[in-house]
Amino acid sequence: MSGARRVSERSGVDPFIVMDVMEQARRAEAAGRSVIHMEVGQPGTAAPEVARAGLARAMEAGPLGYTVALGLPELRAKIAELYGKWYGLDLDPGRIVVTAGSSAGFLLAFTTLFDAGDRVGLGLPGYPSYRQILKALSLRAVGIETAAANRYQPVAGDIPADLAGLIVASPSNPTGTMLDRDAMAALIARCAAQDTAFISDEIYHGIQYEGRAISALEVSDDVYVINSFSKYFSMTGWRIGWMVVPEDHVRTVERLAQNMFICAPHASQIAALHALDAEADLSANLSVYARNRALMLERLPGAGFDRIAPPDGAFYIYADVSHLTDDSVKFASEILEKAGVAVTPGLDFDPVRGGGTLRFSYARATADIAEGLDRLTAFMAAR
Amino acid sequence: MSGARRVSERSGVDPFIVMDVMEQARRAEAAGRSVIHMEVGQPGTAAPEVARAGLARAMEAGPLGYTVALGLPELRAKIAELYGKWYGLDLDPGRIVVTAGSSAGFLLAFTTLFDAGDRVGLGLPGYPSYRQILKALSLRAVGIETAAANRYQPVAGDIPADLAGLIVASPSNPTGTMLDRDAMAALIARCAAQDTAFISDEIYHGIQYEGRAISALEVSDDVYVINSFSKYFSMTGWRIGWMVVPEDHVRTVERLAQNMFICAPHASQIAALHALDAEADLSANLSVYARNRALMLERLPGAGFDRIAPPDGAFYIYADVSHLTDDSVKFASEILEKAGVAVTPGLDFDPVRGGGTLRFSYARATADIAEGLDRLTAFMAAR
Repeated sequence: MSGARRVSERSGVDPFIVMDVMEQARRAEAAGRSVIHMEVGQPGTAAPEVARAGLARAMEAGPLGYTVALGLPELRAKIAELYGKWYGLDLDPGRIVVTAGSSAGFLLAFTTLFDAGDRVGLGLPGYPSYRQILKALSLRAVGIETAAANRYQPVAGDIPADLAGLIVASPSNPTGTMLDRDAMAALIARCAAQDTAFISDEIYHGIQYEGRAISALEVSDDVYVINSFSKYFSMTGWRIGWMVVPEDHVRTVERLAQNMFICAPHASQIAALHALDAEADLSANLSVYARNRALMLERLPGAGFDRIAPPDGAFYIYADVSHLTDDSVKFASEILEKAGVAVTPGLDFDPVRGGGTLRFSYARATADIAEGLDRLTAFMAAR
Repeated sequence: MSGARRVSERSGVDPFIVMDVMEQARRAEAAGRSVIHMEVGQPGTAAPEVARAGLARAMEAGPLGYTVALGLPELRAKIAELYGKWYGLDLDPGRIVVTAGSSAGFLLAFTTLFDAGDRVGLGLPGYPSYRQILKALSLRAVGIETAAANRYQPVAGDIPADLAGLIVASPSNPTGTMLDRDAMAALIARCAAQDTAFISDEIYHGIQYEGRAISALEVSDDVYVINSFSKYFSMTGWRIGWMVVPEDHVRTVERLAQNMFICAPHASQIAALHALDAEADLSANLSVYARNRALMLERLPGAGFDRIAPPDGAFYIYADVSHLTDDSVKFASEILEKAGVAVTPGLDFDPVRGGGTLRFSYARATADIAEGLDRLTAFMAAR
């Protein structure tokens, strides 16, 4: 023990369990073994070509200094246009806050809305960082167990009355399930009635297969919407995203953003601006996900993973494997060891029931997905 | 009033006063008037050419996905080498955390070290965002008024015993003054004796004119050091920096970083990696600052701004103008209106005494600085 001061209580966040899987995979690959990566939650593709070309030009045209805190005005205007194209909404660009990925969006939303000790609800299973960011900000995450019958999404009747906020994600990570308009509207109405702030994580919008995802903004303006260029636009490492906030919150969010972030990365803002023109590339990526999803839906059940949530969007399939194991960490490790396929144990997403679930990601190349399915099928047959 | 939920108490951070100056300058320029910018705290130069070229190559070589949370291993190794070159220190790269600018460094440091309600000290005048980020994290900023006799730096005897942490900056923004080794060591010893975490903001290191800045790491390993590629490396808009933390804090910081940021922007990490090879470009920038500083020191006193802090480093001069005004906001506005020079009112940096101070930045081209000095001289003569 060095003489360093002890750390804060709020810094005691849980480790990512998937990191152990990734480390095990890395060691296996270092030892010369082949691993199919179904654990990673990001596209294998680069940022669109026009995005990279646009940045290459901008880098030579002048210094990329700080931008204003809310983001480049032309980027905000173009994001607003997307709401017209995707949802038929006429969105005021003045309500758009460009952020350093959805991560910065969550930090800004949570600090704008909640004070230390406030209780914030989220569906389980769900993105683990919600809980950890809340803890780091001295907020209390309230897990709401969801049911397969409700597409693993919270329903209005489950929302405690004392919540300062509720986070929903549609399509969801890890399940890929979506809220339809009625389900979304019911949740928003319930929150409005009890003064619970409503935060809609829409970072998988655009990656959908049957019908389109509903934005919370189609239901109400009194919501926080968080989105990102990471997934549909294939720009994870660029750390660029956006929020839409109620008009009368813009100034407050702006002041926080000035101080907490100064601005989102300028280079990433420029790349994002051009990525909004990359329709063709992005459709091609989407076709790959669609082929991969079809393969997964066709072959996972035959391999023995037949209890799966309806994968409406994103690039995940969440499987109930509680008939096979109550230790998803051990099971994932066994699959990696014996089948050479890396998958994510459900415990990252649901500390209560995740011992009996796995998440499969199908964001990589189709040939990898096919090979992974072969391996999973052989592994389960031999088990 | 929309139906949106009221905002949190901790989001009520102060606006930046300099923003009003910038808006006034923008309007003046839009109306065809010429404005010399001595208000802006960033270099006018781009990222080094090798940094841009390196990124241009990397963008075409493969997807820039998420990096590991602590940053690219080769970048961490190369930053560690800098500690050898600059300070003669043998620093373990494992203690380096690559961050999305120093802003992310502060968010990580404060959440790792402090719980809601903790009191954190900082010298006044000082960088305003320290206070605002602390507030946003439900922490209590404790301003410590510093004296000209102490180079506007806090001294050990001023540090309250109940502080959970102390932030120092050397060179300082807004004063440009530095702590010498004895002053730094005395502060660190005092903090260690009373279990106060010591955070050293070293983002202006490398920009120094007579003697070099001392790193807190030359005195102790039980400190947090925050640095950035923004200033010396001329990469403000890239939002890339780093922290050095005690060895036994690395895992805690890593887990927080995974959840709060995922990683610093990959593109910026690559640009930063190459910027570490740009010695020649960076020396050229430094020569410009040195010339600008000499001009400022030669001519500001003659213009009537003769009560200035010793500008050891950074690219700022902080002037006591309390014999001229007790309303630095009004005075800065008058200087902009009548002289066509934008400067920053001291109230951003010192809510108590800043009504009688101004900050002049000399980060831009020398011709601009000379013209600005001409204008200031004429303005003061006519006053």
